[in-house]
Amino acid sequence: MCIFCKIVAGEIPANKVYEDENTLAFLDIKPVNPGHTLVIPKKHYQNLEKIPEQELSFLILMVKKIGAQLKDKLKVEGYAISANNDLVAGQIVPHLHFHIIPRHEGDGHEPWSRREYAPGEAEEILKKLKG
Amino acid sequence: MCIFCKIVAGEIPANKVYEDENTLAFLDIKPVNPGHTLVIPKKHYQNLEKIPEQELSFLILMVKKIGAQLKDKLKVEGYAISANNDLVAGQIVPHLHFHIIPRHEGDGHEPWSRREYAPGEAEEILKKLKG
Repeated sequence: MCIFCKIVAGEIPANKVYEDENTLAFLDIKPVNPGHTLVIPKKHYQNLEKIPEQELSFLILMVKKIGAQLKDKLKVEGYAISANNDLVAGQIVPHLHFHIIPRHEGDGHEPWSRREYAPGEAEEILKKLKG
Repeated sequence: MCIFCKIVAGEIPANKVYEDENTLAFLDIKPVNPGHTLVIPKKHYQNLEKIPEQELSFLILMVKKIGAQLKDKLKVEGYAISANNDLVAGQIVPHLHFHIIPRHEGDGHEPWSRREYAPGEAEEILKKLKG
């Protein structure tokens, strides 16, 4: 059983922010910023590809709801939501989870570096995507 | 009109990955990694708080669909999805958008730093959230 399934089953404690029949939200134990919350489906799905459409559509509404709650109750001005899909993307626990990360001025978290496409590179990618 | 609304209206060109009646997906012009795609609702909503539930539920399914397409067609092993909600969270264009960022081993993009809660700090946050 994965660590998030153990939290759902009550075998490992968590600081629960929200719970309903299908969803659990709890504080990340190692937050990027205070109030960093994880929102998970109670059923074990490894990633976005595995979760059925109807359940994903519901889950994102809980993310929206909890994000608004963080803004309202913790007086944060904004937040990032993210889901790292698969190990190579930094997904440590193989149970789909959305991070909601409160952000504030001067918190020191920098966006990832970006570059521009070389001439023809974007067109090549589009060709592959549509092929 | 915001820059994404101009792209929807055809006033600014974009490398379109996917389009339907409600949704547009196109390559970010300054990708974190090649294939970095933005998925937006065609209607202008500033952020997650503003988009109606039904439209958000639909939008996330398009993110799921395009993420799977990136995996399949570009042979990426995983991806991050994210939405920066509000300026303080790094949202440059005030029109809700999900990033889908292909990830690969050794791409050099590091997760944000984390820390542990001080004793009692998490409980204090929970109290505010539930208050």
